[in-house]
Amino acid sequence: MKKPHRYSTFESELTVRPDDIDMNNHVHNSKYLDYVLAARYDQMERCYGMSMEKFVSMGLGWVVKRCRVEYKRPLKLGDVVIVRTRMVELKGSTATVAFEILRKSPEKLAADGEFEYAMVHLATGRSAPIPQEVVDRYSV
Amino acid sequence: MKKPHRYSTFESELTVRPDDIDMNNHVHNSKYLDYVLAARYDQMERCYGMSMEKFVSMGLGWVVKRCRVEYKRPLKLGDVVIVRTRMVELKGSTATVAFEILRKSPEKLAADGEFEYAMVHLATGRSAPIPQEVVDRYSV
Amino acid sequence: MKKPHRYSTFESELTVRPDDIDMNNHVHNSKYLDYVLAARYDQMERCYGMSMEKFVSMGLGWVVKRCRVEYKRPLKLGDVVIVRTRMVELKGSTATVAFEILRKSPEKLAADGEFEYAMVHLATGRSAPIPQEVVDRYSV
Amino acid sequence: MKKPHRYSTFESELTVRPDDIDMNNHVHNSKYLDYVLAARYDQMERCYGMSMEKFVSMGLGWVVKRCRVEYKRPLKLGDVVIVRTRMVELKGSTATVAFEILRKSPEKLAADGEFEYAMVHLATGRSAPIPQEVVDRYSV
Repeated sequence: MKKPHRYSTFESELTVRPDDIDMNNHVHNSKYLDYVLAARYDQMERCYGMSMEKFVSMGLGWVVKRCRVEYKRPLKLGDVVIVRTRMVELKGSTATVAFEILRKSPEKLAADGEFEYAMVHLATGRSAPIPQEVVDRYSV
Repeated sequence: MKKPHRYSTFESELTVRPDDIDMNNHVHNSKYLDYVLAARYDQMERCYGMSMEKFVSMGLGWVVKRCRVEYKRPLKLGDVVIVRTRMVELKGSTATVAFEILRKSPEKLAADGEFEYAMVHLATGRSAPIPQEVVDRYSV
Repeated sequence: MKKPHRYSTFESELTVRPDDIDMNNHVHNSKYLDYVLAARYDQMERCYGMSMEKFVSMGLGWVVKRCRVEYKRPLKLGDVVIVRTRMVELKGSTATVAFEILRKSPEKLAADGEFEYAMVHLATGRSAPIPQEVVDRYSV
Repeated sequence: MKKPHRYSTFESELTVRPDDIDMNNHVHNSKYLDYVLAARYDQMERCYGMSMEKFVSMGLGWVVKRCRVEYKRPLKLGDVVIVRTRMVELKGSTATVAFEILRKSPEKLAADGEFEYAMVHLATGRSAPIPQEVVDRYSV
């Protein structure tokens, strides 16, 4: 029986900006999604060696199908934030990615959750099977 | 045996703004959370008769504990958007709210999902039982 | 001697969203630019009969070259906002537009200022003379 | 005759995030204001030794009275951005700050302009003379 692949966890760092803060003096809840997106873009190029531009040049793109966020602790102005992501499953046209958002110092979990992305043909918006080259690069 | 309460569905309308659009020429995925937030603020005052300001004057606030979004169809510049929300459960310090985001014309589901909010004491950030007055007003 | 053209003032309305509010409990200063942009998009189609999509289909686009904002009064959550814009000058590849942002009720000036836009060829990003058809439609 | 004070130029660095990009595939025009704000917050603490929190503890805050931006070149996803700011004048309750936003590599000017901030009493929102301690710290 084939064992499930164990994927690597990658890490990106960013700093909370004043425009991320809302009327509660915390990072606004929807910005957590933007932090994960920023981390994935960074990691696509730096960790998987396949930038968004490469996908675009193949006529392919990723769209978000589903997300789930559990908020644990607020993030504040000036916090340095670590975003860890890890592939959970790559199957058909779908990539499922788990994430953790942490305050860096002292390290504390601020949120975790999952994103499901679908590969699409940019021209039509229709779902596309993830090419084997991509599966190989992402299976690290 | 007590039957579970059937809560009303309320509806707010908003128009997509150009700054909501991202590089894919669609409403950016994190803006869907902001649309639900805008709808809840509108409905708190207009439909439940209890604005955010009233909560603040009682020393209480709502924080997002969890959210889940299923993206069905892209929204585009110029689209008029309907956000429907419905209380699912009010229990202890937690309110669970289901939502649908629809393009207005022709009416098509763009996304649905759920938010879980916790009532907190603003002074301490600690969770607070939802006061009976609030439960009564929200049980419509 | 040719008299300078007197251009019309057009008006759009929008409602402040919770995600527009920053840590000072007011509409964040950069959102004023987004409000003007939203008003121009609305007015391009509704008042000048020439939507952004029409420009794109001609291979043309507008880019912001310069802006100036004078902040007069804060805007708050729940405020209904009126954005008035008026063409000041149309010349070469440049359109200069004056704006006022007002709280609706009671009507109070929240900000005013000016935007300078340049017409560009979308393919090259180079500046393009504003076509006579556009000058005519905007000279109302 | 007293010579005008020559103020230092300070520099902050940030990375363009995917949620900063708009439908034109460039950093959205209003985000330039947010980049300057992020740089000022960073520099208030790091370069002037007086964080926003310190002002708040003195019952004081800064509000934007006026801004002017000249856009020179687009910024793109993945660009590292340098924001240079320099005090121009400190007088009464007003601080005027000039800024440059540059793409880091190769270094190219993306925008420049000016912000005018007013010191206010947080409790009343009324303008406050800038305290001598602040003038001293900012006169570097």
